[in-house]
Amino acid sequence: MKILWLFAHPDERSLSAALKTDGLRTLEAHGHQHRVSDLYAMKWNPVVDPADYGHDPTERFHVGPASERAYTEGRLSPDIASEQQKLAWADTLIIQFPLWWYGMPAILKGWFDRVFVKGFAFGITDPATGRPQRYGDGKLTGKRAMVIVTAGARAATLGPRGVNGDLNDLLFPLQHNTLWYTGMSVVPPLLIPGADRTTPETYETATTRLRDRLLTLPSTTPLPFRHQNTGDYDDNLLLHPHLTPALTGPAAHYTSPPPPAHI
Amino acid sequence: MKILWLFAHPDERSLSAALKTDGLRTLEAHGHQHRVSDLYAMKWNPVVDPADYGHDPTERFHVGPASERAYTEGRLSPDIASEQQKLAWADTLIIQFPLWWYGMPAILKGWFDRVFVKGFAFGITDPATGRPQRYGDGKLTGKRAMVIVTAGARAATLGPRGVNGDLNDLLFPLQHNTLWYTGMSVVPPLLIPGADRTTPETYETATTRLRDRLLTLPSTTPLPFRHQNTGDYDDNLLLHPHLTPALTGPAAHYTSPPPPAHI
Repeated sequence: MKILWLFAHPDERSLSAALKTDGLRTLEAHGHQHRVSDLYAMKWNPVVDPADYGHDPTERFHVGPASERAYTEGRLSPDIASEQQKLAWADTLIIQFPLWWYGMPAILKGWFDRVFVKGFAFGITDPATGRPQRYGDGKLTGKRAMVIVTAGARAATLGPRGVNGDLNDLLFPLQHNTLWYTGMSVVPPLLIPGADRTTPETYETATTRLRDRLLTLPSTTPLPFRHQNTGDYDDNLLLHPHLTPALTGPAAHYTSPPPPAHI
Repeated sequence: MKILWLFAHPDERSLSAALKTDGLRTLEAHGHQHRVSDLYAMKWNPVVDPADYGHDPTERFHVGPASERAYTEGRLSPDIASEQQKLAWADTLIIQFPLWWYGMPAILKGWFDRVFVKGFAFGITDPATGRPQRYGDGKLTGKRAMVIVTAGARAATLGPRGVNGDLNDLLFPLQHNTLWYTGMSVVPPLLIPGADRTTPETYETATTRLRDRLLTLPSTTPLPFRHQNTGDYDDNLLLHPHLTPALTGPAAHYTSPPPPAHI
């Protein structure tokens, strides 16, 4: 594998950082290549700014068209272009973060806001069919992605009946509406629970699970999200009535139930 | 009402900004008070940093305990303390943003990451019962919140059968796991769709809906999320088996279905 490892924790002495180090060592030991975007260490700027696109500040700013022009004309801010090049190099994207307010830390959300510009990650049309390429189809098709989250909560509270909601549902905007949207195959997330009560035993369990998930990543069955362009959705982008007709919620956008994310 | 209006769009000439201006005027005309946190205009820093809490950089950094100590001892970074004071003043929180990658812009996510520290928004225990106060119970109980999102997508694609997923499900981490978590009552979100194809007619429709939602906010039925501490969840914080036993997904955490968010 050629892995880009996105990482978003402010302390290099954290559990998160220890897991990252262990994971990268495991990959090296098995001959895989990696590059790391350690967003705190890079002092990554997460805030979309018209200046990212060389936008004339006297003009009204439309994020989509402005970013698409800058992308097409090679005028994107160098920090954005550099991240796009790393992702173009990689065949696998790891996204590791502590669950803050049940989502990504702002510094990581802003990686997607700034790097996934129009023309690169959305707004792409198939020249042959004229159809928009998204949800299973796009420039990032062929790459794999995996989310690794540490959380203070106990695992079951992030399960299908837990008070915090199911982890796959909390990650739906990222896993389905961002990664799968751009064409990437998303393997099930790895949850490291009880992160603020780590003992030597739970740390050992965590690294064992992490190593296993990393080394089996290329052969792991991806989350079975539906494709936009292979007949599950109608011309208005609504699920065809005959498909799981009684089902709503994130579950309706899988062809079969995903494995439990909290185990 | 005393409204704190959180706003996160980079261009003051945007549709989002025009709606904000119209909404604030409407509130003023009806005798309501407001304060505004225009995050781009404030150059809000969204990145959690040990320096926010006066944390000794030679020590390992645990976000929760470090933020709780700083909060309790009045040592939080002044920009964070100022936002907490605004929220303490308000009885109503409006959160307005363009939907970027189906969630909040990073600058807004980082408002919650930094302002909602331990002791203020989580990690609170009822001294009488010893139980954690969250999901319908906490220091922000009694306040109301409403999300206003502009989105390029058509409304139906953000409905229960739409390819992008149901808006309430996409907003679940914010509406349920953040706002309701801290005790706030959350009224249904207001979606302004087709935001990049606005015409005078659709703008008129949008402002009419906005004014109506703002002026009826105090009497609008909140989203019927389940309370953690009133018997729906067991001691392990799992839904009791007799409650909607076949139901999983975000829907399981409502006592009855919420109104459609995309209409």
